[in-house]
Amino acid sequence: MGNLAVSYAGAGKVELIDTPYPEFELKDGPGVHPANIGRKVHHGVILKTIATNICGSDQHMVRGRTTAPEGLVLGHEITGEVVEVGRDVEFLKVGDVVSVPFNISCGRCRNCKTGQTGICLNVNPDRPGSAYGYVDMGGWVGGQAEYVLVPYADWNALKFPDRDQALEKILDLTMLSDIFPTGYHGAIGAGVTVGSTVYVAGAGPVGLAAATSAQLLGAATVIVGDLNADRLAQARSFGCETVDVSKGDPAEQIEQILGVPEVDCGIDAVGFEARGHGHDAGKEQPATVLNSLMEITRAGGSLGIPGLYVTGDPGASDEAAKVGSLSMRFGLGFAKSHTFVTGQCPVMKYHRGLMQAILSDKVSIAKNVNATAISLKDAPQGYAAFDEGAAQKFVLDPHGLIGA
Amino acid sequence: MGNLAVSYAGAGKVELIDTPYPEFELKDGPGVHPANIGRKVHHGVILKTIATNICGSDQHMVRGRTTAPEGLVLGHEITGEVVEVGRDVEFLKVGDVVSVPFNISCGRCRNCKTGQTGICLNVNPDRPGSAYGYVDMGGWVGGQAEYVLVPYADWNALKFPDRDQALEKILDLTMLSDIFPTGYHGAIGAGVTVGSTVYVAGAGPVGLAAATSAQLLGAATVIVGDLNADRLAQARSFGCETVDVSKGDPAEQIEQILGVPEVDCGIDAVGFEARGHGHDAGKEQPATVLNSLMEITRAGGSLGIPGLYVTGDPGASDEAAKVGSLSMRFGLGFAKSHTFVTGQCPVMKYHRGLMQAILSDKVSIAKNVNATAISLKDAPQGYAAFDEGAAQKFVLDPHGLIGA
Amino acid sequence: MGNLAVSYAGAGKVELIDTPYPEFELKDGPGVHPANIGRKVHHGVILKTIATNICGSDQHMVRGRTTAPEGLVLGHEITGEVVEVGRDVEFLKVGDVVSVPFNISCGRCRNCKTGQTGICLNVNPDRPGSAYGYVDMGGWVGGQAEYVLVPYADWNALKFPDRDQALEKILDLTMLSDIFPTGYHGAIGAGVTVGSTVYVAGAGPVGLAAATSAQLLGAATVIVGDLNADRLAQARSFGCETVDVSKGDPAEQIEQILGVPEVDCGIDAVGFEARGHGHDAGKEQPATVLNSLMEITRAGGSLGIPGLYVTGDPGASDEAAKVGSLSMRFGLGFAKSHTFVTGQCPVMKYHRGLMQAILSDKVSIAKNVNATAISLKDAPQGYAAFDEGAAQKFVLDPHGLIGA
Amino acid sequence: MGNLAVSYAGAGKVELIDTPYPEFELKDGPGVHPANIGRKVHHGVILKTIATNICGSDQHMVRGRTTAPEGLVLGHEITGEVVEVGRDVEFLKVGDVVSVPFNISCGRCRNCKTGQTGICLNVNPDRPGSAYGYVDMGGWVGGQAEYVLVPYADWNALKFPDRDQALEKILDLTMLSDIFPTGYHGAIGAGVTVGSTVYVAGAGPVGLAAATSAQLLGAATVIVGDLNADRLAQARSFGCETVDVSKGDPAEQIEQILGVPEVDCGIDAVGFEARGHGHDAGKEQPATVLNSLMEITRAGGSLGIPGLYVTGDPGASDEAAKVGSLSMRFGLGFAKSHTFVTGQCPVMKYHRGLMQAILSDKVSIAKNVNATAISLKDAPQGYAAFDEGAAQKFVLDPHGLIGA
Repeated sequence: MGNLAVSYAGAGKVELIDTPYPEFELKDGPGVHPANIGRKVHHGVILKTIATNICGSDQHMVRGRTTAPEGLVLGHEITGEVVEVGRDVEFLKVGDVVSVPFNISCGRCRNCKTGQTGICLNVNPDRPGSAYGYVDMGGWVGGQAEYVLVPYADWNALKFPDRDQALEKILDLTMLSDIFPTGYHGAIGAGVTVGSTVYVAGAGPVGLAAATSAQLLGAATVIVGDLNADRLAQARSFGCETVDVSKGDPAEQIEQILGVPEVDCGIDAVGFEARGHGHDAGKEQPATVLNSLMEITRAGGSLGIPGLYVTGDPGASDEAAKVGSLSMRFGLGFAKSHTFVTGQCPVMKYHRGLMQAILSDKVSIAKNVNATAISLKDAPQGYAAFDEGAAQKFVLDPHGLIGA
Repeated sequence: MGNLAVSYAGAGKVELIDTPYPEFELKDGPGVHPANIGRKVHHGVILKTIATNICGSDQHMVRGRTTAPEGLVLGHEITGEVVEVGRDVEFLKVGDVVSVPFNISCGRCRNCKTGQTGICLNVNPDRPGSAYGYVDMGGWVGGQAEYVLVPYADWNALKFPDRDQALEKILDLTMLSDIFPTGYHGAIGAGVTVGSTVYVAGAGPVGLAAATSAQLLGAATVIVGDLNADRLAQARSFGCETVDVSKGDPAEQIEQILGVPEVDCGIDAVGFEARGHGHDAGKEQPATVLNSLMEITRAGGSLGIPGLYVTGDPGASDEAAKVGSLSMRFGLGFAKSHTFVTGQCPVMKYHRGLMQAILSDKVSIAKNVNATAISLKDAPQGYAAFDEGAAQKFVLDPHGLIGA
Repeated sequence: MGNLAVSYAGAGKVELIDTPYPEFELKDGPGVHPANIGRKVHHGVILKTIATNICGSDQHMVRGRTTAPEGLVLGHEITGEVVEVGRDVEFLKVGDVVSVPFNISCGRCRNCKTGQTGICLNVNPDRPGSAYGYVDMGGWVGGQAEYVLVPYADWNALKFPDRDQALEKILDLTMLSDIFPTGYHGAIGAGVTVGSTVYVAGAGPVGLAAATSAQLLGAATVIVGDLNADRLAQARSFGCETVDVSKGDPAEQIEQILGVPEVDCGIDAVGFEARGHGHDAGKEQPATVLNSLMEITRAGGSLGIPGLYVTGDPGASDEAAKVGSLSMRFGLGFAKSHTFVTGQCPVMKYHRGLMQAILSDKVSIAKNVNATAISLKDAPQGYAAFDEGAAQKFVLDPHGLIGA
Repeated sequence: MGNLAVSYAGAGKVELIDTPYPEFELKDGPGVHPANIGRKVHHGVILKTIATNICGSDQHMVRGRTTAPEGLVLGHEITGEVVEVGRDVEFLKVGDVVSVPFNISCGRCRNCKTGQTGICLNVNPDRPGSAYGYVDMGGWVGGQAEYVLVPYADWNALKFPDRDQALEKILDLTMLSDIFPTGYHGAIGAGVTVGSTVYVAGAGPVGLAAATSAQLLGAATVIVGDLNADRLAQARSFGCETVDVSKGDPAEQIEQILGVPEVDCGIDAVGFEARGHGHDAGKEQPATVLNSLMEITRAGGSLGIPGLYVTGDPGASDEAAKVGSLSMRFGLGFAKSHTFVTGQCPVMKYHRGLMQAILSDKVSIAKNVNATAISLKDAPQGYAAFDEGAAQKFVLDPHGLIGA
């Protein structure tokens, strides 16, 4: 039995390849950490992938900005049906439909015990934290494939209460594996609560998910900034205000919306590939979003930073950024008593509540991020369109289970 | 009636000058913001200063690193006896002995109402936040003087329950106006709790106060790093471990102490005048402490940053730092899911509890920071000694009330 | 100049009386604590009352369940326009339109400094906490009147940003003085967050405000229970599920809605005048709501208890309740690790955020509680209708400013 | 291979019995829930018990106040050495010395994932929450035995970093399985922080652990109340103030100590077997501690309630208490805006930090609770002495590993 999968094929390229059907063991392969080779996964389940999304952080690899090896199977946003359970699995059953947090975690270490599943100590021999199909994350095989192995499944997987209901809402529920919790984590880090004014830098899927989350948390006004007109239009489609950063300083545009040039809460949904605004628009400036957020977030406010910053960026435009250093106006943040909350979202902290919100029709995340299902085979086109800035979130549908 | 006071007299110099006895109005003078001139202070009290300390942040001005005008009366760490009450004061009485938070706050604005007294909106026409005797903080006259005006006194002042007890413990209680809460705020920001391992960068008074606070909060091990052997000895005097950063990388020395090269909690008690370690020891490197803390703080940890970072530093050794930009390894912090808590300590949040700890003999902050009383007239010598790195916290005693 | 006001006129009766126009001093009168007589209020403002609502807690007095003296001017839900400012007021101006928290607080005591304005230490000589027009609360004159004195006005009053906008949304904004924050406090105490399932006991105005708040906080499903069909219909009008407790056990009806007989979060919006359910429906059973909430709130959940429980209830049906003792199934709560959050809502903690939510059209509190404006003169009819269980929140309009 | 164990032998009696050596399966036996019989425990380890303590909650069973069956093996406070690991155990090894939380939890359910291990959903078929050797807790065999099975061991067990160090400090470390975290949980629930004044009701081991915890958290003054002079002396031995409740009202005695009749934080370390004070001293009054704490805890304070309250108490002196109902002065708590935090301590939340505090000599919990090692065979005498009010915490030493 084969397992068709999307893999990285060198800078700018992805391709479909045949891979082995998963077993309850982590086999050698591109990107697998030597210490993980041969690791037994009796605590795992094998999923038939129902939906698996293309993520902006996949793009970092595909653009050749990382040391990802060719042949790496991509995909860390996974929703699927359990087709096999490992011998140590106690609570999941064949037929269960589950959402899988993109962070792999063991459920036994000090960090997992406190809910910090984004920095699990036992899954990545290199450093705390792991993910499926990602460079330097231990080598767990990606889920943009027909089948995928999910370790520590009783701990990691979130079971949907009803299979039919799950399939009906699958385009919403598939966002639980990463971007909805990630955006929500940004909103929580930024201190969004009832009545807040919020600025979200970036109108890609994570930015739109952060904006959706801010609304769900009761924000009074949510403003989304980007350079991309289509993505800004998408943000407006569900009630956000927008700032076109190609037209200049966000502060001025915010003042036009709110009457003051500041917001209560700032969210960075861009990360290290940030580009300048105004006449620098389009030029890569890795600290520009952080510096801008310090300017426009009120004194006493917080910055939620789900956007990815990397420890090294060989392709950076600036020498310091190549080693992960950014030129930050930290003194401004200090003068305003800012708090900065960084890091991978610990998906497990949030996915159950967000699932409940979806299942009770409190939120339409699929519509807000413009979820678009395509077949697994069309993944290369999806990557290309996303890279060109399509205002869409592409959902791969390996088995044709995502309905009309 | 006169009012002898310590004032800034140009780079590297302080001197004693005669100033007017305070009235319930903010008069024009060096550093007073035009919009504050003539401001009525019926809500204020006039204090006879019992103790007023020299602070490291005063040093920034005295070293000529700021735009502080000559003639500025210094001093924001104030403890005194009420000798006059303004007509609108309702709860303080003549004879009360009080501690005054270095942050001036109104007790009426949005930020004060949520306890963020370090960024009060109504006391500094330039920006949120204010302090006595400090450049760009609105022009409120400093307290290194015989008498000082304290605005919004019912809100700001912390009354000691008993005058005699207060005078007896005055060397401890005088630390409530700034460094004890500031160090404690650093510990809280760093997430120190029972059983934590803690690294405090800087063994000056704020660093020692942070170390003391970490112990009070139940930390298992507190490690203090500095270049100054006397200050490190002072840290060891009350049970801290120490790291001599002139001897190289803190991580290695921490590993020797703890068995691992990481701590749970990192505190920056240095700020923008940081110097390098190892062979760069002594050379100013404004981001070195922050970058070092990201390295040695465990994934999931927090950095409490009470050390001052400024929006502009004309005297900086590096062009970026002159405009308040630092070259931070932010990608490393992100990879470790660090949280960064910055800003002036909102003293009022902590001073009552810390007072209780002092009054019940739970903590010996004066001993730990090596509090040393000197007369007001000896302030210039105190500034000089402190600038040379004396392992002492100088407490000025304008009226000879600090006992044998 | 006179000041028409609503006063308590003995059990079951309210009447309109002429009272003196306020001065900046608390004068003797019904219910004024001797120690408060003659208290100077230079920190106060005099408001022309724009809207002042009848509250369920007023009913406790009017039903004769308390020791309220005849002649007491009622009313603690106050929104108005500043017509005079005391000499010590610095930030409010004549013409400002403001919301007044029902809790009177000084903004200077230990509790106010930590946001616990419901238990201010300086306004009620009897015990912590105070309110306008309420028995045993210090004697501050009620606001169901043409004019009212608001002490510590710079601290207490929340200024609306724009007068015209405020008048346009006055039926919503008037709920900021009490029931909207009170309901919200119940939701916060119950731990409501995104995705929660919530049960609100009581469909009176506070219950409907709690349900609205739970929705605003992102609750997945909000279920409201009551005996009163009209009030339940009102709850359904804005998307709540309902439980008719006259038809039996809430647990069963909850199971029909949710599939499980438990909710994540329980809110008691009833208090000590609770009545039984099922065949005991209508019979007063002071602990019935609390006991029911322990049954239907999941293990690990919290109970938010904004409903009033009193220290003594001379009119209680049960001897223990007369001295404020309730027969609580506390062992059940313990077995489920419940947390119980009680007490007056500290309005100031929440009113600004809720105002922002109203002003940005995130929430329709007036519609949800069926706000109904009537003239001040019609207050007696309003009290009577409310006592009979009208599914309305009556807003008194002393100057005919609410309106078309 | 046999397994000598302490078992319940009818009201007032415990005895040593021979039991089977554990296997990786839960076998039928006294108190084992039918649904748990035959449950596979491949995720478990078998421990050679190093230390296992007699607990006050064991006493409830031994006094015949519960429906515990004869033959039930007692003991939920367990520290031991791993002698066998189940096939699914990944991170523990034979030879590891570990502390076992008294709450059994699965590490896979919704509650475990949020740290609420006291109400795990998967270990007790009757209701959330479980424990070793306890009535109605699922039937997991108790640890007052030579050997014991610990399920979900990678999740539950806390490994000590060094075996020799662990054995050296074993009398302190054995308190991590229950009373130290339980007392600490009480202090956390009561809001104890730096500078707090604290009243602990009960000077038994949990009360002394709560007092120790309050000191560790930085409390200014810790006052312990009891009827038992020896236990009060024990409390004074480590710096607590004491109140002898047989001499009357705690409030008066507190006033003599603090100058005010109130504390910031109240802890109930007694539970449902509470006895009255003053002339009612010694008479069982199940709500007396709760009512007293409402009286003496300041407005705005919290009550941490680790003391056990039960859903039914057939042996109660009062009819209501038999069904778990208490006559609580809840109106008083409401008037003071009290928060009540109840329930089993989720040990895992705290045990690592407390271990660190012990290993770094920050705290002497064994000395404070007067830990006294006795042989397993002397357990009956230990139970008897403890029941008579000995100011000791008995630690059973099944293998003679607790040193001279």
